[in-house]
Amino acid sequence: MSLVAPTTVRNVSGQTVIEKPDLLAVEEPLEIRLGFGPIADRQQRSLAVTMRTPGHDAELAMGFLFTEGIIHSPNDIVSCRHCVQDVNKEGNVIRVELQPEVTIDWSRLERSTMASASCGLCGKTTIDAIRALTPGPVETDFSIEPSILHALPDHVRETQRAYAYTGGIHAAALFDAQGKLLLVREDIGRHNALDKLIGAAFWQNWLPLHQYGIFLSGRVGVELVQKSWMAGVPLLAAVGAPSSLAVQMTQEANITLAGFVRDERFNLYSQPDRVRN
Amino acid sequence: MSLVAPTTVRNVSGQTVIEKPDLLAVEEPLEIRLGFGPIADRQQRSLAVTMRTPGHDAELAMGFLFTEGIIHSPNDIVSCRHCVQDVNKEGNVIRVELQPEVTIDWSRLERSTMASASCGLCGKTTIDAIRALTPGPVETDFSIEPSILHALPDHVRETQRAYAYTGGIHAAALFDAQGKLLLVREDIGRHNALDKLIGAAFWQNWLPLHQYGIFLSGRVGVELVQKSWMAGVPLLAAVGAPSSLAVQMTQEANITLAGFVRDERFNLYSQPDRVRN
Repeated sequence: MSLVAPTTVRNVSGQTVIEKPDLLAVEEPLEIRLGFGPIADRQQRSLAVTMRTPGHDAELAMGFLFTEGIIHSPNDIVSCRHCVQDVNKEGNVIRVELQPEVTIDWSRLERSTMASASCGLCGKTTIDAIRALTPGPVETDFSIEPSILHALPDHVRETQRAYAYTGGIHAAALFDAQGKLLLVREDIGRHNALDKLIGAAFWQNWLPLHQYGIFLSGRVGVELVQKSWMAGVPLLAAVGAPSSLAVQMTQEANITLAGFVRDERFNLYSQPDRVRN
Repeated sequence: MSLVAPTTVRNVSGQTVIEKPDLLAVEEPLEIRLGFGPIADRQQRSLAVTMRTPGHDAELAMGFLFTEGIIHSPNDIVSCRHCVQDVNKEGNVIRVELQPEVTIDWSRLERSTMASASCGLCGKTTIDAIRALTPGPVETDFSIEPSILHALPDHVRETQRAYAYTGGIHAAALFDAQGKLLLVREDIGRHNALDKLIGAAFWQNWLPLHQYGIFLSGRVGVELVQKSWMAGVPLLAAVGAPSSLAVQMTQEANITLAGFVRDERFNLYSQPDRVRN
């Protein structure tokens, strides 16, 4: 299991052509399966397939299940293991066994993955659906110095092994008000990197993350805000641009959103007062 | 309907703080619904919800349906329109009416969106599933000069209105062997930008795209290769890095893959001979 895979490329630079060895970010499908129900009538269901970079698969599965509102505490889980029934599996199926007493609202889950309940689909409905899952706006006394945010990109980059080699992998990092990095996770998918990070924090019983910020190496869409809101994070800092709906949701969630965090600059899109002037 | 939305940000640059107006890339959900079956027994099914930038929604829906193997020619479609039953819809539901004689293989579709058929899920299975949908490896005499590829990023960027304003939106562009841009589509999601592009070409009856290349403004995962393969494109040129599975699939599909196309350089990962030395 490796984050990177070797290849040979033909490198063209202006008119110069050379063959050389190179490294690629590994992408493989991961299927997340759920075992649930009473012991006498145990059931299995395949929940999702995501294209991810192998590694920290259990954290990815737990982060996904938590941010989708299916599980709420580490106590809900009996085990979380790769499926070993098939010699061709290659570690690409993970099975999460829930405690018999955990009940799942399948209709809500289908709504959230398909959102097809009504013709009145719009950004507002999306935000309403998430709000119903969360404990409300994030309330905390967390605040941070601008200098901590300025230093984050280089700080995270130093820890990101796979990016240095491939230039093609995202990072999500958990940091505290002093800028100390507590966790860094990498994945080819931005949402997977964040699921791995939140899954790790979830498993260590650190949630809600009221005294931490999350750093993202890319852009911020509404799904990343949704996951962060579920984890109770008061501050999101991203190297890239946020979307309109991401900004709307951070305002609703009382999350501070910093975008374009690079080159000693950033923009604050919501709740700017957690960043001290 | 706009690609960008106004906002106000607090801009922090070193120690300097100013409030200023800014623009965000718009992100809204789009639900794709299918009307199908005989006239006497017409049915409707919700297929997918994607977070997209509004605009070219019909092309997005058609590109999605074509690259998923559900429709095969413009003749399969009776109409493709926004749903107007609900005053709150805000143009976020699109309904594609298929001809009564179009048959849909739902089991294959569910496999392709869930891939949960077997425990033997791996990159190889993913590639096998796609190969079954396509007409085989791309065979064409298309070839191109390196200088055309070097010029692409600036060329596309000049046409990209929304990126210039927001810094947060992807582009997919169709170009010919002389580097002429035939179509450019923008979206907050890379796969949506490509679906819009392929949907537009599909609707104009340009498929298979054997005499064109596709330019992508970001990284290349396996899903983008899959869509391009379905459209019969012999060359993919991307500003970002490809994944391991993307490279494997282009080799299988006989598609030329150029990555890191920027600053007068690029790497060729597969079928390099279509780029003339």
